[in-house]
Amino acid sequence: MTRGKFITFEGGEGTGKSTQAARLVDRLAATGIDVLRTREPGGSPGAEAIRDLVVSGSADRWSVRTELLLMYAARSDHLERTIGPALDQGRWVVCDRFADSSRVYQGLAGGADLALIEHIDAAVVGARQPDLTLVFDLPFELGLQRALGRGAAETRFETKGSAFHGRLRDGFRAVVEAHSERCRLIDAGGEPDAVAARVWAAVESLL
Amino acid sequence: MTRGKFITFEGGEGTGKSTQAARLVDRLAATGIDVLRTREPGGSPGAEAIRDLVVSGSADRWSVRTELLLMYAARSDHLERTIGPALDQGRWVVCDRFADSSRVYQGLAGGADLALIEHIDAAVVGARQPDLTLVFDLPFELGLQRALGRGAAETRFETKGSAFHGRLRDGFRAVVEAHSERCRLIDAGGEPDAVAARVWAAVESLL
Repeated sequence: MTRGKFITFEGGEGTGKSTQAARLVDRLAATGIDVLRTREPGGSPGAEAIRDLVVSGSADRWSVRTELLLMYAARSDHLERTIGPALDQGRWVVCDRFADSSRVYQGLAGGADLALIEHIDAAVVGARQPDLTLVFDLPFELGLQRALGRGAAETRFETKGSAFHGRLRDGFRAVVEAHSERCRLIDAGGEPDAVAARVWAAVESLL
Repeated sequence: MTRGKFITFEGGEGTGKSTQAARLVDRLAATGIDVLRTREPGGSPGAEAIRDLVVSGSADRWSVRTELLLMYAARSDHLERTIGPALDQGRWVVCDRFADSSRVYQGLAGGADLALIEHIDAAVVGARQPDLTLVFDLPFELGLQRALGRGAAETRFETKGSAFHGRLRDGFRAVVEAHSERCRLIDAGGEPDAVAARVWAAVESLL
């Protein structure tokens, strides 16, 4: 059995990642590919329970170091119970946020020890790195406006202040440079159809 | 302000650690020392929420790697919000279980990557290592019988099987050897008064 392809969507708040991930899944399914759509934090019963701790409450509920450990605990469970088994069965996996969000939210923007992140990532993700990572790029004022406009309950990250959100964008751009073998920067501006076309152009190389 | 002393109690299930920790706290307080009693996993509001995830449910609810990350997430919060501030104010801290439980339960007995544990420990605990660690030692059949006899609700670790509990005892003995500068093996057999006297003999060196 050929291992399935693993595609992750990354970027700041309100960049349209989730909408585009859903569109990509539909398009892949239409070509006959068996594809699983999932998200982080969460994606397995254990990881969703951890998600409840991480995404709600006040912005200072957890230190960035505690948050990092919780995120990788959730990721560990998600990989073991959901992503890994799907890939091993030959299914494709499209995941809304993954390890690069830890590199940026907790690491580059949050100040957590970058060497610690890579040690933990090597132990938890190891060889299960994504085949392709699409990093959605948008001026953060625009994205944050969209995200807060959703009126969602899970606002712990959205309320972290504009300096933090500015660092997110720079952080994701740095990740694309550091992991250019798998990362593609996607211009998230303009009409959803135009963004979907950019996504598909990046994904076609895997087919 | 002189930093307070940090004493941890370690050992397998049902070794009498918690009872003896309470007795030690009373005795220290009687000598005029301001002392905080706490426990792991837990000891701060965030860490107690993580504890709820870790100590309940079936034995295979979490993989050992996920469990390790959850334990250190809880420990990170506990150190930042409870232990660290108390020590900085000159208070003594007596903690029922700490990082050596991760070294043994998840590492030596559970099979988690020992190098990963030390990387995370260096980042989370760092220089805040205990001044003294009392490792309670008892044949595991005896301890487990006591622990299960309590009829407690939090039985996820107690139900892990006798091979695991045998490895715990060997693991704690190995930790005492590896960290002999701060660890003392305490014979947990016999009458509580006798055990308390052994504990006090070890603690007196800190006074």
